[in-house]
Amino acid sequence: MSTQPRQLTRKKDRGLTDRTELYDILDSTLVGTLTTVDADGLPVSVPVLYARDGDRILVHGSTGAGAFRRAAHGAPVAFCVAEMDALVVAATLFDSSANYRSAVVNGVARTLDGDSAVVALTTLSEVLLPGRTTEVRGHLPKEVAATLVLALDIVDGEWTAKRRVGGAGDGPEPGVWRGVVPVVRGWGAPIAEAGTDAEVPASVRDLIAG
Amino acid sequence: MSTQPRQLTRKKDRGLTDRTELYDILDSTLVGTLTTVDADGLPVSVPVLYARDGDRILVHGSTGAGAFRRAAHGAPVAFCVAEMDALVVAATLFDSSANYRSAVVNGVARTLDGDSAVVALTTLSEVLLPGRTTEVRGHLPKEVAATLVLALDIVDGEWTAKRRVGGAGDGPEPGVWRGVVPVVRGWGAPIAEAGTDAEVPASVRDLIAG
Repeated sequence: MSTQPRQLTRKKDRGLTDRTELYDILDSTLVGTLTTVDADGLPVSVPVLYARDGDRILVHGSTGAGAFRRAAHGAPVAFCVAEMDALVVAATLFDSSANYRSAVVNGVARTLDGDSAVVALTTLSEVLLPGRTTEVRGHLPKEVAATLVLALDIVDGEWTAKRRVGGAGDGPEPGVWRGVVPVVRGWGAPIAEAGTDAEVPASVRDLIAG
Repeated sequence: MSTQPRQLTRKKDRGLTDRTELYDILDSTLVGTLTTVDADGLPVSVPVLYARDGDRILVHGSTGAGAFRRAAHGAPVAFCVAEMDALVVAATLFDSSANYRSAVVNGVARTLDGDSAVVALTTLSEVLLPGRTTEVRGHLPKEVAATLVLALDIVDGEWTAKRRVGGAGDGPEPGVWRGVVPVVRGWGAPIAEAGTDAEVPASVRDLIAG
């Protein structure tokens, strides 16, 4: 039997220490969970769209969400992203698990306004759909005013990142199938809104082409 | 122009009030974020594998994770799942968004032990990969002892669920392409561990067949 699976298994749940690995994970997902603590000391979570912009995380949302509003007022936050890459099917239930990527960033976010809010909103749009900002007009002042944009700096000692890769190990039951079932993700064919006669734009074509 | 997109747009960010809709969302994702509040009042998040089991959420994990350990000792938790279903490409950056499913469940989890832990671990395995529990041996007592299993009851007033569906709306720029780009997800072909000569089991075949 190859020693390869054993080597891979040893790497499971590996904590990452390199920022570039953290950034890879943050850049590979689009939805995260933002959590603050409310006045009663209870955790309040809200899912958010986000973008990594250099050494900070940008999120935008509504003042209607309690977690978001508190974060805008300087409450400490935890921001978490996690995505499964494969189901790991071991020889026992106990050894079965999942390959995944995850990151948690803690800190205090700050509310952006004025030009910095405009720049951040454009960055958010550009990360979510690269090229789109060149195809449509920029944000109007009233649109910027209606949006809450937060920036969370990624500070050393305030983030963790993990990635489990590898196989299902040997396990004590050699006759039982072991292996991984990968999660496959991608973008499907775009669906035009009724009444749209324009061509599918380059931003969408490039996104789908990967 | 059809009124259909306008109707859909009105439903955006719709809060759901029906438990069956909450359960649909919880049953459609495998990874969530569990958050507790630490002794300093700061939120601490950890990604977890989970399963909905009737009107409760089961999670298992390591006592090494602070959030998990505190949850096991009765600290209030927020449990959040979120998944993007489509990028919504509107006529303006401001109106662009995402279709998504999300749920947040708050409460106090309890640690399961003895037979209830065994049953919960089997349920977790069975939800993650239906049928697998009939293909391999059950958990050994030492395996149960080494695993922390928490149950979080889903209590009315302590959960929220949202689902945005629909299109990109009309927007003020009729000549600009508008539409949605769906996220496509699935399971890829299973990869057997080196040294595995057993057939791909029914559980894995059924998972991939959907």
